[in-house]
Amino acid sequence: MITNQENTILDDKFRALAADNAPGQEVRQSIKDLETIMIGDKLEGLPVDFSHGDVDAFPPTPNSDKIWKEGFEDGGAQAYTEYRGALQIRNLIAKKLEEFTAQPIAADTELIITPGTQGALFLALGATVTNGTKVAVVEPDYFANRKLVKFFGGDVVPIPLNYLETPSQNGLDLNALEAAFKNNTEVLVFSTPNNPTGLVYSNDMINKIAVLANIYDVTVIVDQLYSRMLYSNETYTHIRACKVRPNNLITIMGPSKTESLSGYRLGAAFGTSKIIDRMERLQAIVSLRAAGYNQAVLKTWFNEPKGWMKNRICEHEIIRDKLLDIFKSAQLQVATPQAGSYLFPKLPPLRIDLNTFVRLLRYQAKVTVTPASEFAPQLNDSIRLNFSQDHDKAIAAATRIVKMVEIYKI
Amino acid sequence: MITNQENTILDDKFRALAADNAPGQEVRQSIKDLETIMIGDKLEGLPVDFSHGDVDAFPPTPNSDKIWKEGFEDGGAQAYTEYRGALQIRNLIAKKLEEFTAQPIAADTELIITPGTQGALFLALGATVTNGTKVAVVEPDYFANRKLVKFFGGDVVPIPLNYLETPSQNGLDLNALEAAFKNNTEVLVFSTPNNPTGLVYSNDMINKIAVLANIYDVTVIVDQLYSRMLYSNETYTHIRACKVRPNNLITIMGPSKTESLSGYRLGAAFGTSKIIDRMERLQAIVSLRAAGYNQAVLKTWFNEPKGWMKNRICEHEIIRDKLLDIFKSAQLQVATPQAGSYLFPKLPPLRIDLNTFVRLLRYQAKVTVTPASEFAPQLNDSIRLNFSQDHDKAIAAATRIVKMVEIYKI
Repeated sequence: MITNQENTILDDKFRALAADNAPGQEVRQSIKDLETIMIGDKLEGLPVDFSHGDVDAFPPTPNSDKIWKEGFEDGGAQAYTEYRGALQIRNLIAKKLEEFTAQPIAADTELIITPGTQGALFLALGATVTNGTKVAVVEPDYFANRKLVKFFGGDVVPIPLNYLETPSQNGLDLNALEAAFKNNTEVLVFSTPNNPTGLVYSNDMINKIAVLANIYDVTVIVDQLYSRMLYSNETYTHIRACKVRPNNLITIMGPSKTESLSGYRLGAAFGTSKIIDRMERLQAIVSLRAAGYNQAVLKTWFNEPKGWMKNRICEHEIIRDKLLDIFKSAQLQVATPQAGSYLFPKLPPLRIDLNTFVRLLRYQAKVTVTPASEFAPQLNDSIRLNFSQDHDKAIAAATRIVKMVEIYKI
Repeated sequence: MITNQENTILDDKFRALAADNAPGQEVRQSIKDLETIMIGDKLEGLPVDFSHGDVDAFPPTPNSDKIWKEGFEDGGAQAYTEYRGALQIRNLIAKKLEEFTAQPIAADTELIITPGTQGALFLALGATVTNGTKVAVVEPDYFANRKLVKFFGGDVVPIPLNYLETPSQNGLDLNALEAAFKNNTEVLVFSTPNNPTGLVYSNDMINKIAVLANIYDVTVIVDQLYSRMLYSNETYTHIRACKVRPNNLITIMGPSKTESLSGYRLGAAFGTSKIIDRMERLQAIVSLRAAGYNQAVLKTWFNEPKGWMKNRICEHEIIRDKLLDIFKSAQLQVATPQAGSYLFPKLPPLRIDLNTFVRLLRYQAKVTVTPASEFAPQLNDSIRLNFSQDHDKAIAAATRIVKMVEIYKI
């Protein structure tokens, strides 16, 4: 017999996981009320879905399908790997990630291959958060972080992020962070480059976070998904390479974004072996392993043809700069992304709420974006664009966003 | 600062998820003490890993790689599907599963594509179990069921399964089940054909379970992973096709076993839309979706070349019968699997404990099996074999198991 109390608990738990506005889920939204709200006519143009990157405009790393086929032909050995992934492939990518982050990684004990970086985040938080665990979550930051903490029964301790100030003023609020750590926060999860703003935490700030985490013995989970797509004149600091480090640290990366390999669902988490161990135990009951044949595609990671990555970054930088021009010319406040392919322009006050504006953007202007509220619950004045898109279509769509702002602003 | 209490809770939680004896994880076991325990010499023969099927001996459905390649070439649309899977593919398999289970399925609301049936089980239990939820778990049954219930904070209510009796005596203990239901059990999870015994629940029993679940409003999650591999003269009953049905019912299937597509990590769950909704919300934070390109391979499912499935079942039936002969000739008690490729022979009393025997089997006789304790915590006298293996190697390995029993029996 179902007790009403537990059913309510489950209802609440899953209400907190509502995914209707999540990137890619827009097809499940109703549009029937929009005709009555819409002002003016539909705007002409080709549809652009800024909710995620367009892997047709920026296709996967060359030969990923050929390497996949080799994995398939390896048969059983590649179909049934250890839950943490095939050792041979862990050996390969551990070396590459070691070079990239300038710190050693033991492939056997300190690394797990996961179903995407989403899978890595799920496992890392599942391994460190239980009922009542206080978790510092940066706002704004990747939309799933907050949901994951709540799902595992933890309490979110929000840490504000400045991203529209000068470089020296930007970054998370270190005083708020230390106060949270003093007040028994046990885990910090954050992304750098930050999703949705493209802010790269400075060397100074990363070192200060590492020292605080070390002093207060806080576990740090850092999502570095976009760290390879670093723009001109920017520098990147890996927290795992800091002189003073957190005692428990997991770094998460994957080839879904810059490398456009999202269709394979591959990621990697590396760091403290005790947490990696727990993550594997959890992976065993979640989906056993990242799809076996797909794991082989990690052989292409950090192993792209010469010049390929440089070119890819350059092409994104061009689009970034054009979109920044368009938004800034329209007097929209927007930070310059230092890495990654997210733009997070702030909108002026509108005569409709943000979710309605986002739905209208899709219906009236054929532009799909993600509302700020996905990244910080109180934030309702910004939209996120993943500008890893066809150059011309992206520029035309950004122009339509500006027109829509003109139509609906107060 | 980490509080000791919560750290202990997490330690306990992950101790319950220990995966060292789980199928496929044997490479992580230490073997250093075995030399001193071993009696006699190593047994000659080719290694056989009965912990899972051998997809080199029984290769994937023809052309799965070609269909995968078509999915890859579809690009972005196939890389970024809805979290519940691409609608076009859900439409296709909903029709096939409708035919197979003789009950309609609404592809838009009643079906989700998952990363393997393991992924489906995780999502289904995550959607229905929270702290304090009582869940009826059959013993023996698939090893992850118990772990999943505990991970989500539920309480396992064990329901004994008879599988070494006559057909009319076999099946779960209906009195224990009704007592559990009366005592506020809210969820029942079970597999049919049963993993590890190969028992197919009778039509009569499935109908009785359905009626009880209906009366006591218990949510039923049924794992039918192996239901396509049904041996001569056996009949199968889908609980979703019963006249009286549970109000909340999720059926789980997938192409990992009979079809040898495990390397793609694909599964499907179908049934009550409210639960499917929750499962998608959970999938969104677990790993977003089953790997996009891989989803395309579901087009081959229930769509195999003519005669292929019949032949595959027939080849397994031949191996089943030979292994049954070998074990029965050695006076081992063993049930005849009615479907699937698991055999679960009972061993006589041994002079070493079951886990040591299993490790010795691997070290001394090059045979990997899974100990009974993975399927029922108190059961320590049986081993599970997945006999989806090369015919000759499997027979030789079964003969070595019998020799090992002779060596180590009291």
